[in-house]
Amino acid sequence: MTQHSRITASVDYEKNGKQVGYLSAPHSHNLSGWGAARFPIAVIRNGSGPTMLLTGGNHGDEYEGPIALTKLIQALDPARIQGRVIVMPFLNAPAVAAGTRVSPIDGVNMNRTFPGDPLGTVTRMVAHYVHSRLLPLADAVADIHSGGKSMFFSPFAAVHELDDKALMEKSRRAMLAFDPPIGLLVRELDVAGTLDTEVEKAGKVLVTTELGGGGTTSTATIGLAERGVRNLLRHFGVLDGAPETRASLGLKPTRLMVAKEDAYVATDHSGLLEMLVDLDAPVSAGQPIARVYDLEHPGAAPALYHARSDGFLIGRSHGALVAAGDFLAMIARDA
Amino acid sequence: MTQHSRITASVDYEKNGKQVGYLSAPHSHNLSGWGAARFPIAVIRNGSGPTMLLTGGNHGDEYEGPIALTKLIQALDPARIQGRVIVMPFLNAPAVAAGTRVSPIDGVNMNRTFPGDPLGTVTRMVAHYVHSRLLPLADAVADIHSGGKSMFFSPFAAVHELDDKALMEKSRRAMLAFDPPIGLLVRELDVAGTLDTEVEKAGKVLVTTELGGGGTTSTATIGLAERGVRNLLRHFGVLDGAPETRASLGLKPTRLMVAKEDAYVATDHSGLLEMLVDLDAPVSAGQPIARVYDLEHPGAAPALYHARSDGFLIGRSHGALVAAGDFLAMIARDA
Amino acid sequence: MTQHSRITASVDYEKNGKQVGYLSAPHSHNLSGWGAARFPIAVIRNGSGPTMLLTGGNHGDEYEGPIALTKLIQALDPARIQGRVIVMPFLNAPAVAAGTRVSPIDGVNMNRTFPGDPLGTVTRMVAHYVHSRLLPLADAVADIHSGGKSMFFSPFAAVHELDDKALMEKSRRAMLAFDPPIGLLVRELDVAGTLDTEVEKAGKVLVTTELGGGGTTSTATIGLAERGVRNLLRHFGVLDGAPETRASLGLKPTRLMVAKEDAYVATDHSGLLEMLVDLDAPVSAGQPIARVYDLEHPGAAPALYHARSDGFLIGRSHGALVAAGDFLAMIARDA
Amino acid sequence: MTQHSRITASVDYEKNGKQVGYLSAPHSHNLSGWGAARFPIAVIRNGSGPTMLLTGGNHGDEYEGPIALTKLIQALDPARIQGRVIVMPFLNAPAVAAGTRVSPIDGVNMNRTFPGDPLGTVTRMVAHYVHSRLLPLADAVADIHSGGKSMFFSPFAAVHELDDKALMEKSRRAMLAFDPPIGLLVRELDVAGTLDTEVEKAGKVLVTTELGGGGTTSTATIGLAERGVRNLLRHFGVLDGAPETRASLGLKPTRLMVAKEDAYVATDHSGLLEMLVDLDAPVSAGQPIARVYDLEHPGAAPALYHARSDGFLIGRSHGALVAAGDFLAMIARDA
Amino acid sequence: MTQHSRITASVDYEKNGKQVGYLSAPHSHNLSGWGAARFPIAVIRNGSGPTMLLTGGNHGDEYEGPIALTKLIQALDPARIQGRVIVMPFLNAPAVAAGTRVSPIDGVNMNRTFPGDPLGTVTRMVAHYVHSRLLPLADAVADIHSGGKSMFFSPFAAVHELDDKALMEKSRRAMLAFDPPIGLLVRELDVAGTLDTEVEKAGKVLVTTELGGGGTTSTATIGLAERGVRNLLRHFGVLDGAPETRASLGLKPTRLMVAKEDAYVATDHSGLLEMLVDLDAPVSAGQPIARVYDLEHPGAAPALYHARSDGFLIGRSHGALVAAGDFLAMIARDA
Amino acid sequence: MTQHSRITASVDYEKNGKQVGYLSAPHSHNLSGWGAARFPIAVIRNGSGPTMLLTGGNHGDEYEGPIALTKLIQALDPARIQGRVIVMPFLNAPAVAAGTRVSPIDGVNMNRTFPGDPLGTVTRMVAHYVHSRLLPLADAVADIHSGGKSMFFSPFAAVHELDDKALMEKSRRAMLAFDPPIGLLVRELDVAGTLDTEVEKAGKVLVTTELGGGGTTSTATIGLAERGVRNLLRHFGVLDGAPETRASLGLKPTRLMVAKEDAYVATDHSGLLEMLVDLDAPVSAGQPIARVYDLEHPGAAPALYHARSDGFLIGRSHGALVAAGDFLAMIARDA
Repeated sequence: MTQHSRITASVDYEKNGKQVGYLSAPHSHNLSGWGAARFPIAVIRNGSGPTMLLTGGNHGDEYEGPIALTKLIQALDPARIQGRVIVMPFLNAPAVAAGTRVSPIDGVNMNRTFPGDPLGTVTRMVAHYVHSRLLPLADAVADIHSGGKSMFFSPFAAVHELDDKALMEKSRRAMLAFDPPIGLLVRELDVAGTLDTEVEKAGKVLVTTELGGGGTTSTATIGLAERGVRNLLRHFGVLDGAPETRASLGLKPTRLMVAKEDAYVATDHSGLLEMLVDLDAPVSAGQPIARVYDLEHPGAAPALYHARSDGFLIGRSHGALVAAGDFLAMIARDA
Repeated sequence: MTQHSRITASVDYEKNGKQVGYLSAPHSHNLSGWGAARFPIAVIRNGSGPTMLLTGGNHGDEYEGPIALTKLIQALDPARIQGRVIVMPFLNAPAVAAGTRVSPIDGVNMNRTFPGDPLGTVTRMVAHYVHSRLLPLADAVADIHSGGKSMFFSPFAAVHELDDKALMEKSRRAMLAFDPPIGLLVRELDVAGTLDTEVEKAGKVLVTTELGGGGTTSTATIGLAERGVRNLLRHFGVLDGAPETRASLGLKPTRLMVAKEDAYVATDHSGLLEMLVDLDAPVSAGQPIARVYDLEHPGAAPALYHARSDGFLIGRSHGALVAAGDFLAMIARDA
Repeated sequence: MTQHSRITASVDYEKNGKQVGYLSAPHSHNLSGWGAARFPIAVIRNGSGPTMLLTGGNHGDEYEGPIALTKLIQALDPARIQGRVIVMPFLNAPAVAAGTRVSPIDGVNMNRTFPGDPLGTVTRMVAHYVHSRLLPLADAVADIHSGGKSMFFSPFAAVHELDDKALMEKSRRAMLAFDPPIGLLVRELDVAGTLDTEVEKAGKVLVTTELGGGGTTSTATIGLAERGVRNLLRHFGVLDGAPETRASLGLKPTRLMVAKEDAYVATDHSGLLEMLVDLDAPVSAGQPIARVYDLEHPGAAPALYHARSDGFLIGRSHGALVAAGDFLAMIARDA
Repeated sequence: MTQHSRITASVDYEKNGKQVGYLSAPHSHNLSGWGAARFPIAVIRNGSGPTMLLTGGNHGDEYEGPIALTKLIQALDPARIQGRVIVMPFLNAPAVAAGTRVSPIDGVNMNRTFPGDPLGTVTRMVAHYVHSRLLPLADAVADIHSGGKSMFFSPFAAVHELDDKALMEKSRRAMLAFDPPIGLLVRELDVAGTLDTEVEKAGKVLVTTELGGGGTTSTATIGLAERGVRNLLRHFGVLDGAPETRASLGLKPTRLMVAKEDAYVATDHSGLLEMLVDLDAPVSAGQPIARVYDLEHPGAAPALYHARSDGFLIGRSHGALVAAGDFLAMIARDA
Repeated sequence: MTQHSRITASVDYEKNGKQVGYLSAPHSHNLSGWGAARFPIAVIRNGSGPTMLLTGGNHGDEYEGPIALTKLIQALDPARIQGRVIVMPFLNAPAVAAGTRVSPIDGVNMNRTFPGDPLGTVTRMVAHYVHSRLLPLADAVADIHSGGKSMFFSPFAAVHELDDKALMEKSRRAMLAFDPPIGLLVRELDVAGTLDTEVEKAGKVLVTTELGGGGTTSTATIGLAERGVRNLLRHFGVLDGAPETRASLGLKPTRLMVAKEDAYVATDHSGLLEMLVDLDAPVSAGQPIARVYDLEHPGAAPALYHARSDGFLIGRSHGALVAAGDFLAMIARDA
Repeated sequence: MTQHSRITASVDYEKNGKQVGYLSAPHSHNLSGWGAARFPIAVIRNGSGPTMLLTGGNHGDEYEGPIALTKLIQALDPARIQGRVIVMPFLNAPAVAAGTRVSPIDGVNMNRTFPGDPLGTVTRMVAHYVHSRLLPLADAVADIHSGGKSMFFSPFAAVHELDDKALMEKSRRAMLAFDPPIGLLVRELDVAGTLDTEVEKAGKVLVTTELGGGGTTSTATIGLAERGVRNLLRHFGVLDGAPETRASLGLKPTRLMVAKEDAYVATDHSGLLEMLVDLDAPVSAGQPIARVYDLEHPGAAPALYHARSDGFLIGRSHGALVAAGDFLAMIARDA
């Protein structure tokens, strides 16, 4: 017997017009015996047409998605769309409210728990609902990420290397429609539990991004998210009008890049981090890119870290304190 | 009877050469009955001459000071100086190690506790030591701040409006020697407990800064701190050579600005922050500069915040989650 | 291979007389490598006859069960019974000791984890033991609940709508034997993991209650629990004597009520709660029953909540601070 | 030099009309470097006349004051008053928001810290502001308390035995104007640090209450607070109209009672509490009033506690878990 | 499909020479989005020969293993071995760094979670890696335990009663090669989840120890671990030279003992523990061995605990505060 | 005006016989509005004679005092004494109950807060009471310390170098009457806030000890405390009978030793500690006594620490994890 979701929704996915409501996940805890955790959801529908699922706040400390999608919910006119847009601006709402990557309720990283569990803790229940109830409705999914409090990226949209080459090509075209400064092709090796994997397994288009980070936003990165998401809605024919291109905004075209296994540099030392190169700067393999100083002994020589490949620095540790095993840098090459 | 400090130092302030050691503040706690908290200190001395006290990490989540001063400790050749440099790169060392503004040991904000207390908690003991033992040795003090994890500033050095106009002029000249992008004249109203106030009360020059923030650093802000501190050492004749000027680096001269009481904008609402203007952008009084969205109700109209004066945005909230009472923006005018 | 329980009992279920002992659940933790969590259990037996399992403290902040069953353990004379009474007065003993709904050891809500797991955390181990070892011994189970710290109920005993109508009728008669002020027929939709469900799945009678709440007790609610449990023992022939009826006490007969899906009102707003009606008061659909005030802005109009059905208020939020998603009120109709 | 308060107010105490704003207490912490804690305050003024200061939420888990005063702020029409009403509905606002007796910011019990400290932690700063800025403006003060999460009282208003008999008589008349079910004369021995003491030291009338408790409210206790506060405003001539008397509501007149040192019963044992008498019940000296059961050994005889004096139970421990030293009961006699 | 481990190793198990590196277990958390937990591992190999896996710090508060194995890593000369030694000196590295029995990351007791889970939390991932990747490489395993912070043992090595008598005999001989003061034969009843069980299930030799405890070490217990591990390497022919015997050190031969179910005494009372016999002292069944005093009532008679069997005290509670269910004493007999 | 203590005692210091009761320190907190912290105290009196004050548990993780004094309270027959014995077996009772050095209520180290503060937090209130109420009653004080969880000492009693040579001689004789294995003369430099200092300032005899440590006890160290305290009572003529001498027990006489400033060795490195010498072993200046290993890099050479003076190791760090600044060793010389 399939276990049904314990989650209830205050919105009706089949109704025309705009609804802003909640998913309610039962959460019985010391302060609230019959309480529920609330996850905002909006449904904007007009007649028939494709369905696009838009998510932000999959990690709770990444803010371009939550802000851009909240603005979208408020601005989108149902009369101007054809089909359906389902928006969860704060996918891991308790984490967004706490400003943390993972949920403060159960400590679960939403993006490592798909396809979820209907009898699991709150985050797992929600992942299960998204997977079992929303994903079947969607033709395409955009999951807007940023670097979070611990990382900072030069803004990019990304598509995964897939065995299904037709799906990969559809995904690549959608990524380009998003019209990001950088379009990255990544081969991910450790993918179990992500929303991405489940969308792709279902044979559907997934566009993901990394837009800035550090637990902050700028007008530029929010603008990028807003424009990108609207372009995707236009690309899939849900929103009327033509995508707004980088060319039309006087910007350089999307730079196509790739990141392989040697893109990543991690630290073996805990301490105080000094990055030696800035985001977008060119680096060559073997070039020193970071120093880690010993906080107990400021007179001691720092540990030195080097690039493992040629390319450009497109991601870095945001924080200045690092622990052994932490990510320091991501270096991508032009495709 | 004056209570002596309980702190012991492993360095000798009268010895020539370079010493890197510790202040040990007795800290008897559950994990260490006869333990001590360690605060790194370096003394670099060569013969007679002025003494400069350099401090970073007064707030533990501000990193330009700790990194630039650690590098200075390692690089400074005693043979090239005349006089004495005392460096505390991590003034609130337990806070620096924890990555927090205030000390994790006693919850005390170092920069609100001067002149300290010899029988107080660890942070108060250290403030007392700095005030009673180091300040009398110093001719000038540079205390390197940044925005910390919760704020971000367009880099500036600052001098306070003082009743002692001669000291104020000496301070202003020292600030210009630091050669920052912006030189700010501030009238602070709530100054009790700061290191600044105590230095100025003692009739000594104090240069302070706000260099970036957000709990991160860049090559530019670290460079600014390194160059500024060396320039100060040269300005006071402690280090040989001429200050390295912005002109010599092809940079625009320091921009002189002022911040009055209407410079600051705070929020009355808790929620998700969208800044509408970026650092360094011009703003005019009444212009909307920020929106705060309600996390429980993404369909609700955000609260809107406006500039209270004309000027340029030189500081902003770094975080994207704000609580009622939080700082949103700082707007300064050209002097 | 079936995994055996790791739990050991200091009582012998087959022995005549009264034993008060423990279940010991291995709990290896930082403070006790080879420690065990203790769960008090009493066995009172005399010859052959039915076995009744009585549990209190399934949620650790509900006190009528723990107090009434502790008194029963101390008072019950084995010579006066025929059969066996197994009592766990503090079913989730670590939660009872901490005064919390869920276990402080593993954060698990005992009443959502049945049938448990022999290799799981402490609460799951105990649930598994109760399910696999005690439930097979029992002919009927009474699980005494109250509202806990977050809710308050007008005292009732309840029986679930079951597909097995014969069992439902036996359960209804047992509920009436408990002789509560209100006898409630509830259709529960979200039942996975409860003790109730497992007892009913096993084809056995389950009587449950909600007696007051708010983390306190009164002489009336404790008396209700004591009398009810003794009446049940008499109803099943375990204890000698006739049930003490409400009529014999000069009380009005049990009021039969039903609660459907529209019985529950939850809040969409966090803030300060003002209930507008008291327990037992009649309400009509659409009537305002609660206001929620904004704690940041006491000048702002409160959110208003309304009854969704006609009936009587039989449950309410006990706390005065509520969060979005929290339970506000339960409204039942006369059957 | 007198240290000025670091607190700023957004309201003008001299302005006619109704203002709802904040006190902002600088609170520099890890999440907000230049943040402030906000304490709501309302000023309702019309021409000249007496000033009454009304406070609720002195302890953050006592809710009649916060709710009744929030409603008063919203309802009071400046045109109907003569003089000035200053309302702080959440005197210890961070504690009210957290639902705790003491402030979560500094762990300070507001009502033990008067006259406060302008350089102290947030709660002390606010106490200093209330004492040095608001108290001089006030002719009388009403501070609305309840039992909080750990105690429950039969609703009463109270006045202290004072050496200044004239002030005591004025206070007694004000207390009667509040028109409570019980009017209590208490001799408090341990009064250092309370708002009461400071008001009385200043020779001004103080009315305090204990209205229910247990971390909840009822329509009756909120109504009592609302009516009482309005009656006080009328008693002092600030609000027009005659006080609404208990007689006019068909209620019995205020019962005058006294509580001496033998009124209080505390427990020497930790464990599970069973109260043997209910609020308002008569008790005689030596009568058993409570049992405390051992949570580890439910088979062990409970500790028994007795009344120390004749009288009526007007206060009790709300919680069912008690620790050695905890309050169990308060017994008052008719005056 | 078998789920692959998410863990990567920086060492190559097939390479000759000495490598000291890490296992990196992905650990995405609030402070480090793409971070990893690091588990030190050393591989010392020379040509062909048996593989021995040596682990310490399975529980993080047991220090003989971590110190002795760190010294072994530093001292072992690959030229002197034949075969391979794989050393994980801090098997539960995050727990060792925190000084806690279980992991501070996920609260998991490493030695209760074998064979682990490749998609589980960090500790489970590592257990899975050890089980699926390292155990197949090993011919024998030594897992060095001590009493941890809560227990203290008279140093012994142990072997389990096994159904496979040939393996049991090989294990017994290996235990004797370790040459401990006491060699214990134990029948363990609750073995699910231990490393021991998995090694024995795989038909391989497992030697385990309990060397002291209390969260400390002595030169004697570290020496015992160092000598024992080298002796094992010699016993299996991996290290050259003959085992260093107790006889050659002038010590009494290993004392062979057995511990049955009646070896263990636990407490039913929480309080202050006074042990009445010291480690290694003889005890007889029924002899008082411990008193537990009531911390609330120092005038009350203590609870008294007795030995359940004749023998010698070889283990005791280290701490002086005990809770009901805690281990008090272990009593073994001569074999 | 002197502020009176807020503490009440349930014992009468002037009454003959044995009383075991409490000091109650008002402690209003979130769980108990009118609660009190309880500090056990016993008064055993018979007629006139000297008064001796005995305290244990000044630090909550030191157990010889609490156990020996609890046993003394239970065993002492008032008929056999002449004068008065006041015993506080758990001076910092909340810390004893929590097993921590400092109080869990306010984080205060009792032995750094004398002479206390009547309006301070709980620990300060108690220190004030002991200083202002008990100390004036006492002719001599014995404060029984051990090493606590973080240190371990070879058992000694100690006397301070005092300017008042007559008092010092009286103290020395009392120390010898305690009859410890080692009698230590210490010059303490950092004494502000200790009970010792206040007793000595009052011109009274103070005997203090360090008996073992590590958060545990042995029959030997408890016996030492029991015998020593009784000997002191006999030395001062409070208890009848002659002191039980080491000679009469067949033990070597007390060894007289001194500890100067160079007695102490602290660590500059955090990591895993290996002590190279055991308690009581002879060491010579410059001899390596400890290694500290880097937990992140087990392949790295450890830091090495050396004795600063000749002598014998009489104290060491108990824990195996150390942080920079922690105590490693105490080395004393024969006097």
